[in-house]
Amino acid sequence: MEVGVLYSGGKDSTLAACLLDPVCDLTLLCCTFGVTDDYRHAMAAGEAAGFPVRRVELDPEVARGAATEMAGDGFPRNGIQTIHEHALEQAASLDYDGIADGTRRDDRVPTVPRSLAQSIEDRYDVSHLAPLAGIGRGAIDELARELLVVETGPSEQIEKGDYEAELRVLLEADHSETVSDVFPKHTQSRVTGRR
Amino acid sequence: MEVGVLYSGGKDSTLAACLLDPVCDLTLLCCTFGVTDDYRHAMAAGEAAGFPVRRVELDPEVARGAATEMAGDGFPRNGIQTIHEHALEQAASLDYDGIADGTRRDDRVPTVPRSLAQSIEDRYDVSHLAPLAGIGRGAIDELARELLVVETGPSEQIEKGDYEAELRVLLEADHSETVSDVFPKHTQSRVTGRR
Repeated sequence: MEVGVLYSGGKDSTLAACLLDPVCDLTLLCCTFGVTDDYRHAMAAGEAAGFPVRRVELDPEVARGAATEMAGDGFPRNGIQTIHEHALEQAASLDYDGIADGTRRDDRVPTVPRSLAQSIEDRYDVSHLAPLAGIGRGAIDELARELLVVETGPSEQIEKGDYEAELRVLLEADHSETVSDVFPKHTQSRVTGRR
Repeated sequence: MEVGVLYSGGKDSTLAACLLDPVCDLTLLCCTFGVTDDYRHAMAAGEAAGFPVRRVELDPEVARGAATEMAGDGFPRNGIQTIHEHALEQAASLDYDGIADGTRRDDRVPTVPRSLAQSIEDRYDVSHLAPLAGIGRGAIDELARELLVVETGPSEQIEKGDYEAELRVLLEADHSETVSDVFPKHTQSRVTGRR
């Protein structure tokens, strides 16, 4: 079964790939709106973890809409959800039997409720796989410790390929006063290899 | 990470074990109320798939209560849920870091909502893992075809180690007029090996 995994270079999407790897033929999908080259950090992390990687282009209009939404909200949740749903649709329109992501049972955002997963499955004739959706935070942390080499640090120093880097640039351009509200400094992680 | 998997010998719990196998140290838990020896079919299926297996005793009073509930309802759903929750608690009280099951995204019963999973995690200091909880039916069927050797047939001929065999015996004894309503003839599957 050929599966494309939405991939950021972080712990969760790498762990999702590790769970599926023995039973699927995986490609890690590194998404970009074309705003920055940060997707290359995800490509590098995925290659360091031993997986094939592929660049996937997302619609920059969706990113601009999400940035405006985040600026208006003062928090990123709804905008991140909008972007993840767009990324799922783009991945689903490619040539895979399944698309996967690293959404976890205890995540507040992004989430893929069953209704959304089934809607994508029906419209694109593809399966959705979220192998961490039934796994608690404790087990995920323990598996990540056992399986992954992870670099952790402040969000402005860790180079990742998730949605945040490009959204930050868009917010700086048009809504600069909101950036520190929408993306306050926090601890990020990036995978640098598998154990 | 040492994980015990609630195991029936069917496709779903075997596939759950296959997903976790490369990243955890697994034991398949074959449950019995002591009413019949059908748990041995689960033990045999698990061994045929190459996993360590362990017999786990459940409380026969819970089975009798569930049989009465099913007989009153005329369908098995609520009784099966009662039994699965009891089995999770029994497994959680053993000596594993995590307990897993084969509940799927599209299952109606048994289900393990996040609130139940977290309650068990908090009370027993254990993680709950349901690797199929975010995977759709299409992907599960395809993975099972690719990974497992499965024998399929009418439910009264396929020897499995799930809750049904023992519940049937209890229903026959005390509520015999309800058996064909509660467990109408259906197609069952049993795993006989891995590909």
